[in-house]
Amino acid sequence: MERPRHQGMAKNTYMRWRLPLVCLLWEVAMIVLFGVFVRFGPEADAHWEEEKRKMNLTSDIENDFYFRYPSFQDVHVMIFVGFGFLMMFLKRYGFGAVGFNFLLAAFGIQWALLMQGWFHSFKNGKILIGVENLINADFCVGSVCIAFGAILGKTSPIQLLIMTLFQVTLFAVNEYILLNLLHIKDAGGSMTIHTFGAYFGLTVTRILYRPNLEQSKDKQGSVYHSDLFAMIGTLYLWMYWPSFNSAISEHGDAQHRAAINTYCSLAACVLTTVAFSSMLQKKGKLDMVHIQNATLAGGVAVGTSAEMMLTPYGSLIVGFICGIVSTVGYVYLTPFLESRLHIQDTCGIHNLHAMPGLIGGIVGAITAAAATEDVYGKEGFIKAFDFTGPYQARTPSVQGGFQAAGIVVSLLMAFAGGALVGAILKLPFWGDAAAENCFEDDVYWEVPEDEESDVYHMHNPDKPASP
Amino acid sequence: MERPRHQGMAKNTYMRWRLPLVCLLWEVAMIVLFGVFVRFGPEADAHWEEEKRKMNLTSDIENDFYFRYPSFQDVHVMIFVGFGFLMMFLKRYGFGAVGFNFLLAAFGIQWALLMQGWFHSFKNGKILIGVENLINADFCVGSVCIAFGAILGKTSPIQLLIMTLFQVTLFAVNEYILLNLLHIKDAGGSMTIHTFGAYFGLTVTRILYRPNLEQSKDKQGSVYHSDLFAMIGTLYLWMYWPSFNSAISEHGDAQHRAAINTYCSLAACVLTTVAFSSMLQKKGKLDMVHIQNATLAGGVAVGTSAEMMLTPYGSLIVGFICGIVSTVGYVYLTPFLESRLHIQDTCGIHNLHAMPGLIGGIVGAITAAAATEDVYGKEGFIKAFDFTGPYQARTPSVQGGFQAAGIVVSLLMAFAGGALVGAILKLPFWGDAAAENCFEDDVYWEVPEDEESDVYHMHNPDKPASP
Amino acid sequence: MERPRHQGMAKNTYMRWRLPLVCLLWEVAMIVLFGVFVRFGPEADAHWEEEKRKMNLTSDIENDFYFRYPSFQDVHVMIFVGFGFLMMFLKRYGFGAVGFNFLLAAFGIQWALLMQGWFHSFKNGKILIGVENLINADFCVGSVCIAFGAILGKTSPIQLLIMTLFQVTLFAVNEYILLNLLHIKDAGGSMTIHTFGAYFGLTVTRILYRPNLEQSKDKQGSVYHSDLFAMIGTLYLWMYWPSFNSAISEHGDAQHRAAINTYCSLAACVLTTVAFSSMLQKKGKLDMVHIQNATLAGGVAVGTSAEMMLTPYGSLIVGFICGIVSTVGYVYLTPFLESRLHIQDTCGIHNLHAMPGLIGGIVGAITAAAATEDVYGKEGFIKAFDFTGPYQARTPSVQGGFQAAGIVVSLLMAFAGGALVGAILKLPFWGDAAAENCFEDDVYWEVPEDEESDVYHMHNPDKPASP
Repeated sequence: MERPRHQGMAKNTYMRWRLPLVCLLWEVAMIVLFGVFVRFGPEADAHWEEEKRKMNLTSDIENDFYFRYPSFQDVHVMIFVGFGFLMMFLKRYGFGAVGFNFLLAAFGIQWALLMQGWFHSFKNGKILIGVENLINADFCVGSVCIAFGAILGKTSPIQLLIMTLFQVTLFAVNEYILLNLLHIKDAGGSMTIHTFGAYFGLTVTRILYRPNLEQSKDKQGSVYHSDLFAMIGTLYLWMYWPSFNSAISEHGDAQHRAAINTYCSLAACVLTTVAFSSMLQKKGKLDMVHIQNATLAGGVAVGTSAEMMLTPYGSLIVGFICGIVSTVGYVYLTPFLESRLHIQDTCGIHNLHAMPGLIGGIVGAITAAAATEDVYGKEGFIKAFDFTGPYQARTPSVQGGFQAAGIVVSLLMAFAGGALVGAILKLPFWGDAAAENCFEDDVYWEVPEDEESDVYHMHNPDKPASP
Repeated sequence: MERPRHQGMAKNTYMRWRLPLVCLLWEVAMIVLFGVFVRFGPEADAHWEEEKRKMNLTSDIENDFYFRYPSFQDVHVMIFVGFGFLMMFLKRYGFGAVGFNFLLAAFGIQWALLMQGWFHSFKNGKILIGVENLINADFCVGSVCIAFGAILGKTSPIQLLIMTLFQVTLFAVNEYILLNLLHIKDAGGSMTIHTFGAYFGLTVTRILYRPNLEQSKDKQGSVYHSDLFAMIGTLYLWMYWPSFNSAISEHGDAQHRAAINTYCSLAACVLTTVAFSSMLQKKGKLDMVHIQNATLAGGVAVGTSAEMMLTPYGSLIVGFICGIVSTVGYVYLTPFLESRLHIQDTCGIHNLHAMPGLIGGIVGAITAAAATEDVYGKEGFIKAFDFTGPYQARTPSVQGGFQAAGIVVSLLMAFAGGALVGAILKLPFWGDAAAENCFEDDVYWEVPEDEESDVYHMHNPDKPASP
Repeated sequence: MERPRHQGMAKNTYMRWRLPLVCLLWEVAMIVLFGVFVRFGPEADAHWEEEKRKMNLTSDIENDFYFRYPSFQDVHVMIFVGFGFLMMFLKRYGFGAVGFNFLLAAFGIQWALLMQGWFHSFKNGKILIGVENLINADFCVGSVCIAFGAILGKTSPIQLLIMTLFQVTLFAVNEYILLNLLHIKDAGGSMTIHTFGAYFGLTVTRILYRPNLEQSKDKQGSVYHSDLFAMIGTLYLWMYWPSFNSAISEHGDAQHRAAINTYCSLAACVLTTVAFSSMLQKKGKLDMVHIQNATLAGGVAVGTSAEMMLTPYGSLIVGFICGIVSTVGYVYLTPFLESRLHIQDTCGIHNLHAMPGLIGGIVGAITAAAATEDVYGKEGFIKAFDFTGPYQARTPSVQGGFQAAGIVVSLLMAFAGGALVGAILKLPFWGDAAAENCFEDDVYWEVPEDEESDVYHMHNPDKPASP
């Protein structure tokens, strides 16, 4: 009853020693580095009672845990279920989508705790972590999940782990430049997460260009059920995006405002996505690819500005535009990128993360430049942009300029980093599959010999039907 | 390889210009109205620091965001994943169930923010919004999702958007009459959401009665996987219902109590649903339709009383009864409604929302009428029913009478509103499908040409099998 | 068109009177007992305003509801969606997995509120409940869900309800011995939930040993989609486990720390699971069974120690080890247990809960024994282990000894209780299916006559294909 396997694989995808070796060595490295560097921050340490007195806090509820933990869990769901299931639309790559996303994210959050910790939470030779570090680690890994979307189905798990290692490193450097050196705001990561992650991934997939990918064309589509699974990912991303954009904002009004702005932007985005999905299709029918992806662009595009006084109607406008841009991108740009620029973008991250990310950076720069003491209040103005210490004299328009510079820096880091990592991943010994075996779980997974796959073969004249 | 499409559609379901036009025009209208009216409330505005001083708050944790945001996210999941997936049980209407629910809810929450805002959050010419408004908008849309359940598979997306526009409007009016004019309590919406939404939807589907619907009978059932997808919806509704019923209750004990009562009622409801599902079936087997739906009736039926001193055992009794009523309804009432009253109720909302909603209203009236200062405490009594200002002298039994009046008002609004909207939706140019094409995603969606659909056709003698 | 049913069932699985009777009688018993015993705790009662003054609380945000409700909802999702969907991997037992889990958990939480209430929340003849009781009831039922994993597919719903009744009772007794008599810490339940639940379930399945189970061997595997559904369960368990282990810890640093430790342990566990899954398979491919289960072992194994000063790197080490132990268990131990010890463990709970639970108990004992005032701070030390009142003089090493004793007690309770309950379930009138009908929804559920099941029969030479 054993079903005939693909014959004559051109490439060696045997993972037995390579994958375990990478996983085990890297995890041991994590343990050693955590042992040397990572300790509990004051709000998670058993000395908290003393700390509370020092900080003049009267109640345990003032622990940052209670301000951020619900948002953290929402973000956590977005990374693991949101991205994992969104990428499940391919008919025979569900295990790879959710499983490899799980693997790279589980490694990535550990490495991100270290990298971001060295830059932002380093004190007396130790990285002191709390719930905000967990959120930031998830955010950082989010940018890797985005890049994964571009190369989905075409890379081995080892390549994904290598990409994660490098991308997390570069993310942390880029984030440090933006947040600390340029002193800009990007709480929802339009620039640091989406612009950086997407252009990084697009550069990688450009360098890994596979000229014969049409050999696996039949596997690049969806089936009815895989589209429904993907909608789980879409909806969890959509619903929890207000938590994403507000998770690390300042306590109080900023978190509150970021959630409202994101809620509004996402709602508007759904309407224009549906409108253009129907309009751009000859028969006027809706395309699931658009509903699954372009509806989320509104969340990406208020990533920088959601915690600012963007206002609900400003958010609606941003969402309105992004639903259109993203859907149009799926219809016209993705095929163009593939045929002309040789950028094979499996999930269309250019439409969901790259363009909306850029828009998000620009909207953030404009919103910052337009800020006035009148709108924010005297205290609110200083608090919103942290115009304190060395930045006391910074004006909104200067802040807007720095925000814009942040976009450019993120782009440069993405292109340079993506080129470097792409070149490394192109080395011939990482175990990626041949073009005809792309988008197929069979290569790296034990796949159950189920009826459906029999059906699949029944209708596939190249392969013998099961008895 | 193009699979032959349905021939000879009697009706024009071409959406290419109509649907985009409605979506774009309405979204532009939203932007204009938000621009004129909607601003951040004091707890989401950057002037919050000044506000805090005015309100004598010492910590950011006192911001309403931290009292309600976790519940808001749970409610959000119920609306988009809960309702969206619950309606996915039909074998070939998964895209429509989750996709149209997504569309109408995304539009509905914007319009609800305005409508409810004008009634409840209007100050100096502006609607000031915060997290409680987001929850209320989701609640309002919940009533539309319920009505959608009655007409699922039989209407075009344009019809759904039109219904949403009207239903949200009427919901806000009804809610204003109940909460402000009658001054009654209905935090979990037994009357405003469930009774109103369900009888509204049933009236609409009555007016849209399709005599030839048995032509699509083969598509009105479920398949194995669609039932499992539907269980995702069921469980998220079931698990998060305590958040639903407590989301907008008063801070402190009322939220706490509402969650406990709902938890208890839902648990009891599962047991009686299973009991009657098995008992009413000749072979004693369980029916997934009951498990997916009747188990939720307990949450509906404590919607009004959960925040009152219903007590845990009172909640168990309500849940006990509703599991029975709802399951019996599925077995006996739904077929009767269809054959005798010409009410075609796709999801059986009469059993899940209408009857339990009525019970919920009655239980709420009784619980209010039975309230004593002894049980609630002097302060708790006033706080629970807001017996302040002009309502200072209201007694529990009077309150119970007003609560009962609320049921009647909700019913009248539902019948009148449903009749009006049904008549509008009956107009011949909204693009609904012919009876033989109902419950079929193919009409409004690009459906992947997958193996399963080949199988589907294999067993469908009317249509040629794919080559 | 009626599809031919299985002929000649050896056993009577007719549920029509037995199942309803059990459900209704037991639910009536719950109502009576709740009526006599259960009332709202002070933080959920309408007298809360007076209580606040007594407790010198200045804000409603100090209500325990706001400390624990978000974690409660996460735990709730783990019990109903996490366990329910994780067990959905079997190709034809999805309804049973999610539906029976729903049934037993809904009953179990009610009975657990009573049992745990009598032991822990009994005051003046009443059980006073609040959000912490809801969490504890969910926890208790978690141990039943674990045991259900061992007998999945082989028992009738009545047997499951009976097992729930007894197991919840024994759980509460065991928990009382551990927490109150031995005064040990086990906030995440390595011992009380996992060790007890797993060895209880393994003992039950040993006693219910079915020698002819290979008759339903073809149904013991997964299909592609059932594996994807199971990943929903896996991911929700994995993501929310930090909430599980921190849900009932002390306010403040303990909850914060427990979440961080669990996050770290789970991340490490994924890497070693992937490594060993690939390494132990001849072709080096990954096995979905391991990814679905062994990745969670890290959460189980820090259940006792997560709220202690285990430190992030200590958590990584525990996760590292447990990913290996659990994966190796799936490959070598499960077949051994079945063939040699006649322990048929459907879900492999020995690998996911039993062994990691034991490790968790041991890690907890060691971490407790190693505690010093230096690491915890003077106040933190006393608070962490509750070294107050009669336990004022207890030293860490004595505490470690008592922790170890807790493991032994849990094991003994599990074996004795499992043997008793197994013997009761072996009685011939509970309606379990014959060996050839195990792992088949058809026995207890109305299953839709779908295309896929036609396909299923097409490839099943024993049964005639549908016309």
